[in-house]
Amino acid sequence: MEKWRAADRLLKFSSRFASAVNWNNSCKSKQGKYFYSVATTVHRNPLFSSISPDDISYFKTILGERGVVQDALALDAANTDWMGKYRGSSKLLLQPKNTEEVSQILKYCNSRCLAVVPQGGNTGLVGGSVPVFDEVIINVGLMRNILSFDKVSGVLVCEAGCILENLISFLDDEGFIMPLDLGAKGSCQIGGNVSTNAGGLRLLRYGSLHGSVLGLEAVLANGTVLDMLGTLRKDNTGYDLKHLFIGSEGSLGIVTKVSILTPPKLSSVNIAFLACEDYTSCQKLLLEAKKKLGGILSAFEFLDSDAMSLVLKHLDGVRNPLPPSIHNFYILIETTGSNETFDKENLEAFLLHSVESGLVANGVLAQDINQASSFWHIREGLPEALMKAGAVYKYDLSLPLEKMYDLVEEMRVQIGPAAKVVAYGHLGDGNLHLNISAPAYDDNILAKIEPFVYEWTSKNRGSISAEHGLGLMKAAKIHYSKSPETVQVMASIKKLLDPNGILNPYKVLPSSLFSQN
Amino acid sequence: MEKWRAADRLLKFSSRFASAVNWNNSCKSKQGKYFYSVATTVHRNPLFSSISPDDISYFKTILGERGVVQDALALDAANTDWMGKYRGSSKLLLQPKNTEEVSQILKYCNSRCLAVVPQGGNTGLVGGSVPVFDEVIINVGLMRNILSFDKVSGVLVCEAGCILENLISFLDDEGFIMPLDLGAKGSCQIGGNVSTNAGGLRLLRYGSLHGSVLGLEAVLANGTVLDMLGTLRKDNTGYDLKHLFIGSEGSLGIVTKVSILTPPKLSSVNIAFLACEDYTSCQKLLLEAKKKLGGILSAFEFLDSDAMSLVLKHLDGVRNPLPPSIHNFYILIETTGSNETFDKENLEAFLLHSVESGLVANGVLAQDINQASSFWHIREGLPEALMKAGAVYKYDLSLPLEKMYDLVEEMRVQIGPAAKVVAYGHLGDGNLHLNISAPAYDDNILAKIEPFVYEWTSKNRGSISAEHGLGLMKAAKIHYSKSPETVQVMASIKKLLDPNGILNPYKVLPSSLFSQN
Repeated sequence: MEKWRAADRLLKFSSRFASAVNWNNSCKSKQGKYFYSVATTVHRNPLFSSISPDDISYFKTILGERGVVQDALALDAANTDWMGKYRGSSKLLLQPKNTEEVSQILKYCNSRCLAVVPQGGNTGLVGGSVPVFDEVIINVGLMRNILSFDKVSGVLVCEAGCILENLISFLDDEGFIMPLDLGAKGSCQIGGNVSTNAGGLRLLRYGSLHGSVLGLEAVLANGTVLDMLGTLRKDNTGYDLKHLFIGSEGSLGIVTKVSILTPPKLSSVNIAFLACEDYTSCQKLLLEAKKKLGGILSAFEFLDSDAMSLVLKHLDGVRNPLPPSIHNFYILIETTGSNETFDKENLEAFLLHSVESGLVANGVLAQDINQASSFWHIREGLPEALMKAGAVYKYDLSLPLEKMYDLVEEMRVQIGPAAKVVAYGHLGDGNLHLNISAPAYDDNILAKIEPFVYEWTSKNRGSISAEHGLGLMKAAKIHYSKSPETVQVMASIKKLLDPNGILNPYKVLPSSLFSQN
Repeated sequence: MEKWRAADRLLKFSSRFASAVNWNNSCKSKQGKYFYSVATTVHRNPLFSSISPDDISYFKTILGERGVVQDALALDAANTDWMGKYRGSSKLLLQPKNTEEVSQILKYCNSRCLAVVPQGGNTGLVGGSVPVFDEVIINVGLMRNILSFDKVSGVLVCEAGCILENLISFLDDEGFIMPLDLGAKGSCQIGGNVSTNAGGLRLLRYGSLHGSVLGLEAVLANGTVLDMLGTLRKDNTGYDLKHLFIGSEGSLGIVTKVSILTPPKLSSVNIAFLACEDYTSCQKLLLEAKKKLGGILSAFEFLDSDAMSLVLKHLDGVRNPLPPSIHNFYILIETTGSNETFDKENLEAFLLHSVESGLVANGVLAQDINQASSFWHIREGLPEALMKAGAVYKYDLSLPLEKMYDLVEEMRVQIGPAAKVVAYGHLGDGNLHLNISAPAYDDNILAKIEPFVYEWTSKNRGSISAEHGLGLMKAAKIHYSKSPETVQVMASIKKLLDPNGILNPYKVLPSSLFSQN
C-alpha cells in the first residue's frame, strides 16, 4: 500500500505546534452532498481523445504495472477533491517515479491529445487538482526525494512530491524552516504548493514563493524538460521563466523539482492573543506592529466575533483565552526572533503600549508552547469548525486593508438572516477569508453572494483569489481581477506552451478563450 | 533644461549615508578609450527601417517639439553608457510624458519596423540601456510622478521614471524605505531597476524585486498597455505576467508604472567592520550571523585584501578602520532593527563570540553615523577606485558560496602578473564582483579571462550575471547559465510578445536565435 500514500484520502491537517486534526470524517460523511454540477457550464473538449487499451499498454511499458492505476476505489479518491465538492470521472491514474517518466507520459499524451490533470496532495480548494471529465490523472506523489540541502546558503532542492510537513521535519533537524506553512501541510506537496503559489501563515514574514523559490524543473506538454533548477539567490540571465510555473496551477507544465531558500530556525517564538473593539483599531495595530516589532513580526491574523463563536461552538476543547466578554475582533500576533529575552520584552512593551493607547481592549501572552499551540488552534481550526457547522461558501479575497471589513458588513446586509457571514484571515497580508455558513447549500443564498462578492472585490481593485488560485471554480471569473489585454496574453502563452491544451483543461483561464481553436 | 535631468551625463552616485561621489570626471576623461567595437560581432538587422523625416513629424504630433530630441550633444550623452564602454549611433531620442504617449510611440515604431531602446537613468553595466546602432531611444525620465502611497500597507505606486534616490527621500519622510538600494541611486530610475531586476545592498534582508514588486504597467511592442498594476500582497488570479517584465531588460515591453511593497524604516542601524584570515571563516561567520542575528541582519558584504589596498590607494580620505596589519578578508555587517539597545547588545554579543571562537581576527563597531558612513564608503567606493586604477574587466557572478573564492584564486594563477584580480561583493547573497584591473585594455589579458570565467562559472552551476543582466555584453553567452530548452522558450516568448523584434534588439538573447526569421 506504500504507493498509495500520496493519493489517498487520509488527509492530515495538523495544527501549527502539536496536535493533529484529522479532517477525514467530516469530509467523508458529506460525500455526495457537496458535489457541484459543472457539466452545465463546462463542456468536454471534443478534440481530446479517450483512453484506449493501447494507451494503457503503452503507459505500462513506461511505468510498469504498479504505476498505472485503474482500481475503482483509488480512482474515486483521486477523482474527488478533499472538500468533496468537485468530482471528475477519470479512468486512469498514473504514478511516475521520476522526471523522465513524466516527460514520456506527457509526450505521449500530447501526441494522442489526451488531456491530463497534474495532482499532488489534492488539497486545493478551487477544484484545480481533480479531473473535470475523464482527464488522465498524473500524481507526482512517488517523486519524494530530498536531493540536496546546503546549510550555509539554506537552499533545499527536492522532488515535487515531497509532503510539506516532511520537508518541515527534515529542515527542523538541520536548524532551518520552510518559508511557507499552511494547515494542509500533512498532505500537500511542494510541487502543488509551488504550482498554486500557496500563501499560508508565514507570508507576512518570508514573502511569497515568487521570492523564495530559487529554481524549478518543469515538464512542458510536449515532454520537453525545462531545467531551471538554479540554487542561486541572484541570477539575471534572461527571462526568469520559473515564475510562469509558480501559480499557473499545472496548466503550463508539471513541476517536477523545486529549489527553495529556507530561513534559519530562530529560537524565540512568542504569541499574543488580543481583542480589539473595532476594525479601525485592528488596522492601526497592524501598522504599529510593523513599526515596533519590525523584523521579528511573523504573523498577524484576525477573526471576527462570529468566527470566534463558531470555533467555540464546534471544536472540542477550545476556549477563549480572554475573559468571557464579547469582543468584536480578535488578533493573533506571532513574533519570531533570535533572542528570547529581548523579543519577549519587545512584545510585552508593544502590547502594554497598545492597551494604554486604547487600540487593544484585552490581551494575553502565551506562557508556554501549549498555550501558544492553543491560540493557533483557534485560528487554524476555523475551516474545520465551518465544515462542522453545515454548508459553507468560501471566498479567498485580497482587498485594500481599509476596505476589507466593509465587504463583510455589506455582505451581512445583503444576505440577511438566511446565513451567517464569518470573517477571518491573514490581516497582515490583506487577505480575507470570507465564509458564508448556512444550514444547507441553497441556490437562493448563492444568488445573493455571487456575483455580488466578485463585483465588490473588482470595484475595489481587490483579487478574487488571494492564495487559493482560480482552478475550476473561478476560471471564468478571472476578468473580475485581470484586464482583458492581460488575460489575452495569458491565453497566448498557454497556446504557445501547450498548443493542444492538454494540461489541466477547463481551469485557470476561461474555456471560451480556446473554444475557437 | 529641466527636461534633461533624466538623460544627462551628470550621474550622481551617492554613498549610503552622506557624501555624494561624482563619477562624472573619471568617466568623461576616459571617453573614447573604453568603447567596445561591437560591429564585429553583431550586425544591424536589415529588416529594421531607418528614421525618415515623416517619422520625425509624426512623433512631434504625439510628443510636441520638446519631446523629440535631435540635438547632437544630447544624443551623444544618450548614446553612451556611463562607463563610456558602449556607444550607439541613434539620431533620435523621444521623451514621452505618460503611458499613452509610450503606447502611441511603440504602436507606430512597430508598424514602421523601427527598433527602439528603452532608457531610464542609463546606469547599466552591460550595455543594455544604449543603442547598438541607430535604434530610437525612448527615455521615460519625464514620467516621474508618485501616484500613491498607502501608509498602512506600505505600498508605493509611481511612474517608471522616478529616480530611486527621490523615492528613498519621499519614503523617508513617511517612515518607510525602498526595499532596494544601490550605488547608482542618484541617477537610476525605478523602471530601469525593475526592468533589470536590480539587486544591490538590501537584497539579503528584503529579497529580490520578484518578491517586492506587487504590480506593473507595461507597454508591449504593438502599443498594447498591460495593466498589471495591482497593489495587493497576494493575488493568485491567472499567470503572474509581471515577472516576465522584471529582469527582461526592456526586451518584452516598456515598464511605465510600478507598484512596490516598502518596508517600514527601522530606527536602529548598527554597522561592524571585521577582518577574517581565511575564506572558510567568512563562510562560517555568515552562517552564524544568519542564525544569531536572525531578522535584523541587513547586509553581509565582503572584500579581499587586494580590494582594500585599492580603495586605500585611490580614494581620498579613506582609511582602514582596523589597526594597520594586513588581513586577507574584510567583512561589513549591518543590522537593522527596531530597538537600539537590544540590537546593539545582540550584535556586540555576536561579535564577541565570533572573536572568541577564532572566526574573526579583529573588528570594530561603528560608534556614530559618520563612522558607519565611512565603513560603507570603503565597500561602496570600490567601483570608483577600480575606475581610477586604470582599465577594468568587470564580472558579476553568482556562485555556490563554498566555491566562490576558488575562482578568484584560480583566476590569479590564470592571469599571472599582467593584471590584478580584485574580489568583493554581496557574500550574503552569494554574489561575487570579480574585477580584473590592468594598466590598459589588452586583448591578451581578455583572452586569459574569457571564456575561462564563464566556463568556470557554468561548470559550478553559477550565474554569469547575478544582478547586472546580460545586455549587449553577455547576450551571446546566455548558454553558460541557461539550458538550450530554456533559452528556446525565452526566444518563443520574445517572438510572441514582440514579433518584429523592435524592443531593445541585440540584447539579452543571442541574435542568432532570430536571424532566420
